[in-house]
Amino acid sequence: MSELRWHPLLGEWVISATHRQDRTFLPPAGFCPLCPQQEGGAPTEIPRPDYQVVAFENRFPSLRPQPPEPESLGASAWPVAPAGGACEVLCYTQRHEGSLAGLSLQEAVRLVRVWKLRFEDLAARPEVRYVYPFENKGEAIGVTLHHPHGQLYAFPYLPPLVERMLAQEAKHHQATGVGLHAAILAAEEADGRRLLLRNEDWAAYVPSFARYPYEVHVVPRGECPDLGALAGRALVGFAQALLAIARGYDALWGFSMPYIMQLHQRPTDGGAYPGAALRAVFTPPLRTPTKLKYLAGCEAGCGSFINDARPEDTARALRVALQAAHASGGWA
Amino acid sequence: MSELRWHPLLGEWVISATHRQDRTFLPPAGFCPLCPQQEGGAPTEIPRPDYQVVAFENRFPSLRPQPPEPESLGASAWPVAPAGGACEVLCYTQRHEGSLAGLSLQEAVRLVRVWKLRFEDLAARPEVRYVYPFENKGEAIGVTLHHPHGQLYAFPYLPPLVERMLAQEAKHHQATGVGLHAAILAAEEADGRRLLLRNEDWAAYVPSFARYPYEVHVVPRGECPDLGALAGRALVGFAQALLAIARGYDALWGFSMPYIMQLHQRPTDGGAYPGAALRAVFTPPLRTPTKLKYLAGCEAGCGSFINDARPEDTARALRVALQAAHASGGWA
Repeated sequence: MSELRWHPLLGEWVISATHRQDRTFLPPAGFCPLCPQQEGGAPTEIPRPDYQVVAFENRFPSLRPQPPEPESLGASAWPVAPAGGACEVLCYTQRHEGSLAGLSLQEAVRLVRVWKLRFEDLAARPEVRYVYPFENKGEAIGVTLHHPHGQLYAFPYLPPLVERMLAQEAKHHQATGVGLHAAILAAEEADGRRLLLRNEDWAAYVPSFARYPYEVHVVPRGECPDLGALAGRALVGFAQALLAIARGYDALWGFSMPYIMQLHQRPTDGGAYPGAALRAVFTPPLRTPTKLKYLAGCEAGCGSFINDARPEDTARALRVALQAAHASGGWA
Repeated sequence: MSELRWHPLLGEWVISATHRQDRTFLPPAGFCPLCPQQEGGAPTEIPRPDYQVVAFENRFPSLRPQPPEPESLGASAWPVAPAGGACEVLCYTQRHEGSLAGLSLQEAVRLVRVWKLRFEDLAARPEVRYVYPFENKGEAIGVTLHHPHGQLYAFPYLPPLVERMLAQEAKHHQATGVGLHAAILAAEEADGRRLLLRNEDWAAYVPSFARYPYEVHVVPRGECPDLGALAGRALVGFAQALLAIARGYDALWGFSMPYIMQLHQRPTDGGAYPGAALRAVFTPPLRTPTKLKYLAGCEAGCGSFINDARPEDTARALRVALQAAHASGGWA
């Protein structure tokens, strides 16, 4: 069963997808479904002896191109709808060990090119409104497979937080004529205390309003509304920026840092979204090397975030870590 | 440092509270700060040899009645403000072992009376807009102290999810003249598959639009906008309902079930909130006895929830558990 149920109290869709309970969960070595298929070895999702980057439909998709009909139609105030869209898996490399931080620049550029290709394909589908590549990294955030990989959801609706960000962007653009992301970047550059890195096309900082202690935003210095607009130097620079942040995280506390990496961008429904910008948002779940920031009563229950660290302090620590990882200046 | 920073991308306040990093974390037996102070024993927060229910200001408050001045004022598009309000701890019982489920009905009624008293006191403060009692239960959800206790936040603003629920309530009331919670309850009663329990004044169900597999809502069958309106039979019935659900959860898988319990109600700012209702929302973080539902890329990153279970199925399992816990019929 997989369907969309309308949440009448919050005004948003909930994806009900019951076939996911049995999905592959931390398989033992030698049984990774994201490794290339070895002759005589256990079957994997990728029936080839080797690969560079692979994108394929998730075997346990919440959203899919031909969704089943809902079991019932709900009521008029809380309808039920087919769970259309797509859920894809993107393997970053055929090497089972490692992470985004361990990719070469060439490999990272290839990954960004694949994101762009998948974006262009999915954006062309009329039922898709928002293409959302992301990565859950580390057991602390709930990964069920360790092989370096990310995911991509193509939503048939605008997800709640995306809708709110778009509304804030539109409001700011209407009031000032300037894009919201450009305005925030200008303020961060003027202040300087939370800036981490900058190249010709991208800048990275811990926002002053961070909800997570070590949250990092990577934003374009010029116009770049979505993955489709990414090309040439800006595309390479984006890959460099992501690599630098991922490597800086690993240098911060001397272990592979868990995080959610989100790529946000302009919706694909043809609407006018003034000030929309492609950007990467990293939200590590740790508040110290050994303590998780839980999303509990305050965050999950009423949506109000408490940040236990001063963004000016975490940015300073991250700058030191980026230097230790030789991830400054040239970015990667 | 403790201050509110405006999140310009989401249009919400983030509480920055750096003094909380050193808060007491899972202390060893004999050093529980929520136990009564024993003669010659380690100092606790409660300097009395015994108690029934205690409410006191959190030693590590995110929000407080006399907040410090912010370090800077931010910019006009992302202001910084004092973190006014209150954060309180509510100890349910002096017994260190146990949980809400282990309270007697008399003790649970006393707890609800203390919630009501604290609500009335905090609601009278002009700077308080929303009084939010909640409980984080279990290490899976991040509790740092095991002694049975809850918390209470008095917000100087409407938290984001609360604001959205109020908007949905107002919209539904305007369109239909009926309260949204009453309409949902009527639909759940007509359908019946997800109903768990019912007494004269309260009903409990797994909503059809649940975001968590074992989510339970406890809602009033008549008018009851907030804790201040709770009295007599309805007050006792609320305590019975909460006890029944907590005991049913523990019977479900044979261990003490972790959960977030949220009490939502009408804001205290004097605004008109047609259809607002006091209610308890339980969101356990488990999707199976051994697997957590993580708030990762999809949920935390873009606000879209995936429920891995069919609410009709989890409600059926919970009904069996409630019967096993003898929590049916008379509620407790």
